[in-house]
Amino acid sequence: MPTDPNRLCVVLVEPSNPLNIGAAARAMSNFGFLQLRVVNPYHVAFREARSAVGAASVLTNAEEYKSVADAVADCTLVVGTTAVRHRDLHHPLRRLEAGGRLIRKEFVTGRVALLFGTEKTGLSNDALSYCNWLMNIPTREQHISMNLGQAVAVCLYELMRDPKKVAPTKNKKSDKPAGAGEVERISSVLLEALHVSGYVNPISVTSTEERVRRMVRRLKLSSEDAELWLGMYRQILWKVKQ
Amino acid sequence: MPTDPNRLCVVLVEPSNPLNIGAAARAMSNFGFLQLRVVNPYHVAFREARSAVGAASVLTNAEEYKSVADAVADCTLVVGTTAVRHRDLHHPLRRLEAGGRLIRKEFVTGRVALLFGTEKTGLSNDALSYCNWLMNIPTREQHISMNLGQAVAVCLYELMRDPKKVAPTKNKKSDKPAGAGEVERISSVLLEALHVSGYVNPISVTSTEERVRRMVRRLKLSSEDAELWLGMYRQILWKVKQ
Repeated sequence: MPTDPNRLCVVLVEPSNPLNIGAAARAMSNFGFLQLRVVNPYHVAFREARSAVGAASVLTNAEEYKSVADAVADCTLVVGTTAVRHRDLHHPLRRLEAGGRLIRKEFVTGRVALLFGTEKTGLSNDALSYCNWLMNIPTREQHISMNLGQAVAVCLYELMRDPKKVAPTKNKKSDKPAGAGEVERISSVLLEALHVSGYVNPISVTSTEERVRRMVRRLKLSSEDAELWLGMYRQILWKVKQ
Repeated sequence: MPTDPNRLCVVLVEPSNPLNIGAAARAMSNFGFLQLRVVNPYHVAFREARSAVGAASVLTNAEEYKSVADAVADCTLVVGTTAVRHRDLHHPLRRLEAGGRLIRKEFVTGRVALLFGTEKTGLSNDALSYCNWLMNIPTREQHISMNLGQAVAVCLYELMRDPKKVAPTKNKKSDKPAGAGEVERISSVLLEALHVSGYVNPISVTSTEERVRRMVRRLKLSSEDAELWLGMYRQILWKVKQ
């Protein structure tokens, strides 16, 4: 990760569903953002989420606040998430892709609060008034309202995604391409089996052989796979010769 | 969206938790991918998910299959998702960012199946054997296992994200920057109020005035906001003159 994930606080404002609180915390733990703050949670829900089997340590370490103002006081950038598009917005609105870039920049020197409201009504106008700008996840017009845990997961993924990183590779050997000699051994055993099986018409023998050679080369076999193919064709050749 | 979302099928293999089935369908609906296929679902769970209040039409239209082979038969690319990193992988593994690019390319002419396994054990080796390659979501080493609904949401977001698109802007007027004249009117009313309030020291009057002018300009006010600030300062000036 290019940035310090502890410079982001996820702030859940008045969450009321224990499953969603737990899901938000799980996504935070998955993506390495460990600072969870909750503002006036519905207490039964918060207790239930915290005591759930397998609750992420993110949740047990969550800090509780009485107001949005307190929860974001030490942050240099406060971003509210919203599903709303056109109506009633008094803030600049950015799509997640663009907003994510700005948040990552702010990580370098500052601290960012990312606010999520309740599932039913989102962030209140009061909560929004503490935000520098708003961000929306680019959902389909016909179905803009996302599940809270999923919205948190998608936002955090955007913040830590890194197109330059590649997945760990497992077994270099299997990726090594087969040499021309290995490929030709496969071609010739296969051709012999085709001859013996009567697939090759004596009149068109040359063009058939050439076509088969090209087809085998198009398979772009790895060295490891080439060995297996050769073994299989040899066994088939042995059988058709019986 | 640059690609046809109907060229992607999300395939849930042996899902058993109705909440997760519902969450996967909801994310699909949010991001506009509407083709859901389920392979041997746990029937009680599938019925329960389908009958849930607010179940997405994605779910009621889901197609049921007896085998992975049947579910992916019409697809030109089959991608399995996995949390596993190093062990036991017999397939090329790509991070979501890179895998997503390849899937989007395949959309142009082909049809892609994206497979998700059960929460507990992921995709079986049998299911994996139908895949062209595997994809993983870049989670933290210490907590790699994601919730199914969240994993679906994150993958689909990656497939439809579009850094070139911008959020719909609401009110162009509020984004128009204030003209130099407006900014200067604010500066001079503020300065007059500061003079009357005794803030300005007669010895350093010039440097104070210059500093205030620079500070007001650094605010980069919009035309709309400039009007409000001017009104507020005028009112304050009126009061301090009393």
